[in-house]
Amino acid sequence: MKLATLKDGSRDGQLIIVARDLKTAVIATGIAPTLQDVLDSWDFMQPQCEDLYVQLNQGRAPYSFDFDPKNCMAPLPRAYQFVDGSAWLDYVELIARSRNNELPELFHSQPLLHQAASDDFIGPCDPVQISNEDWEIDFESEIAVITGDIGMGAAPDAAREQIRLIMLANDVSLRALIADDMIKGFGFMQSKPATSFSPVAVTPDELGEAWTKGKVALPLRTSVNGKLIAHPDAGRDMTFNFPQLIAALAKTRNLRAGSIIGSGAVFNRDANKGCSSLYGIRALEQLGGGDVTTPYLKFGDRVKIEMLDAQGKSIFGAIDQTVEQSS
Amino acid sequence: MKLATLKDGSRDGQLIIVARDLKTAVIATGIAPTLQDVLDSWDFMQPQCEDLYVQLNQGRAPYSFDFDPKNCMAPLPRAYQFVDGSAWLDYVELIARSRNNELPELFHSQPLLHQAASDDFIGPCDPVQISNEDWEIDFESEIAVITGDIGMGAAPDAAREQIRLIMLANDVSLRALIADDMIKGFGFMQSKPATSFSPVAVTPDELGEAWTKGKVALPLRTSVNGKLIAHPDAGRDMTFNFPQLIAALAKTRNLRAGSIIGSGAVFNRDANKGCSSLYGIRALEQLGGGDVTTPYLKFGDRVKIEMLDAQGKSIFGAIDQTVEQSS
Repeated sequence: MKLATLKDGSRDGQLIIVARDLKTAVIATGIAPTLQDVLDSWDFMQPQCEDLYVQLNQGRAPYSFDFDPKNCMAPLPRAYQFVDGSAWLDYVELIARSRNNELPELFHSQPLLHQAASDDFIGPCDPVQISNEDWEIDFESEIAVITGDIGMGAAPDAAREQIRLIMLANDVSLRALIADDMIKGFGFMQSKPATSFSPVAVTPDELGEAWTKGKVALPLRTSVNGKLIAHPDAGRDMTFNFPQLIAALAKTRNLRAGSIIGSGAVFNRDANKGCSSLYGIRALEQLGGGDVTTPYLKFGDRVKIEMLDAQGKSIFGAIDQTVEQSS
Repeated sequence: MKLATLKDGSRDGQLIIVARDLKTAVIATGIAPTLQDVLDSWDFMQPQCEDLYVQLNQGRAPYSFDFDPKNCMAPLPRAYQFVDGSAWLDYVELIARSRNNELPELFHSQPLLHQAASDDFIGPCDPVQISNEDWEIDFESEIAVITGDIGMGAAPDAAREQIRLIMLANDVSLRALIADDMIKGFGFMQSKPATSFSPVAVTPDELGEAWTKGKVALPLRTSVNGKLIAHPDAGRDMTFNFPQLIAALAKTRNLRAGSIIGSGAVFNRDANKGCSSLYGIRALEQLGGGDVTTPYLKFGDRVKIEMLDAQGKSIFGAIDQTVEQSS
């Protein structure tokens, strides 16, 4: 099942069901007004949404219309929780090496997670608004999952059962502001502005065999200004899978329905696949001994993040957005 | 105006208006079902709530009932954002000194803020559930504000205008888990379980002259097992006031209605007033050259956090909760 949220002038938008081929959609009339409502009562509402999804895919859903990602908000325009991980330890190590640091031993046994802002997400085709180009504007291309309720102390197997939906994310980062945030030691604050998500969130079954071992085993494609600069396989080299990330998070507290857990920048040891952030690409340039030539994003630059299935069809629709100066 | 949220079996509870003396309350029938709804449409709904509040205080509100904090959830049982500050630099310095650290210069110009979990808050009289006593269970007694929408780049004066409500918080902390979180450098994750809030959230005008310069100039009283152990003045020695905390947070992003900003542990340079965390009290003992004798919380211990007005009357009702072993 594929779900999205239409812009309707409200804070939470209008829940729609989107056809598997992303060509048509239908308002979930009579089921629930918002995606959070569905997550709050998943067992009751998911089968109703699924029935409508089947009708839509068969061309039998009344009042269906053409699906246009430009009219979408993030699937959850605001959420009660967003925790972003750094699940590819090779990526963390790449960054550390570029700064002449070593990874603490702890990083191999406990996943890196940070509590991120969740009150104001950016739609997939809406601009990323930043007030200052000198803040070294970057993307991070990620996978994210949305969970149901998860009790304190849940094991990874229990956590896996509560992964309701999967989507893509652009964890926008301001590299010039990270140093000050790190000195403070309280996590990312000013260096992580609002995050963007793909037009569509899908249930794990939509991925077929690509959803395996709590990972999404398909390349995550990132282009800047039309040029493909990264396509690492999100199923490869992931040190901690989603159930493990969630279980670490649930060690001392409950997670409530609608919690979003991000993977961190997708990265493969085979660096020919590029890197899902400019920061990582610049680290590769530096460690390769050459000049660091890849610039950070400028106003007007366009970032596209997408994942295609084995047949080359877009699964989640694309995050496709420009960077703009905020007014 | 005083607002609270009744337990009704739903995730967001039932909004009620509470009388100034905390003795009676009335359901906000016909206005809005939840506090988040009021915050989402504040300009429209606040006057309606205010009218009902006036009626209630005059004993004219139909269907009013006795107010019992035990039936309350947190005013916002879940929120789209909770950012907790450390606004008393003397407190931060106390902790740093107890570890033989010095404060980075940056701490004097930029407030410490960390993004905290907001999906599952604890009601004022509900137990704090922790699975392991060895995690060094602690409270932090704080003031917190709830904001309206605040645009990216807002100055402190603009931020102040958007402070809708004020309440008390118990930022429960697990001291034994903080070291690992700090090594990771991504902020507090496992060391900060769910936070509790006072029964009632009040509009700033309820504080009269005690709401001054973006601070709450009254003592914040904390008792453990009936013994008063801290009563520092929350208006004194606060390095960054609430408008400054909010403006720092809004530097690179919008804040949306219903964002909660916490002050961090209230502390006065005059250490005779005690300290709003056991960690701080233990640091005072250590630096005083004596034995560190104050223990962390054990299962069964009871923490009460309250603020009284100049006439000795409770403003927010009390956070009054026991620590329990989670099942």
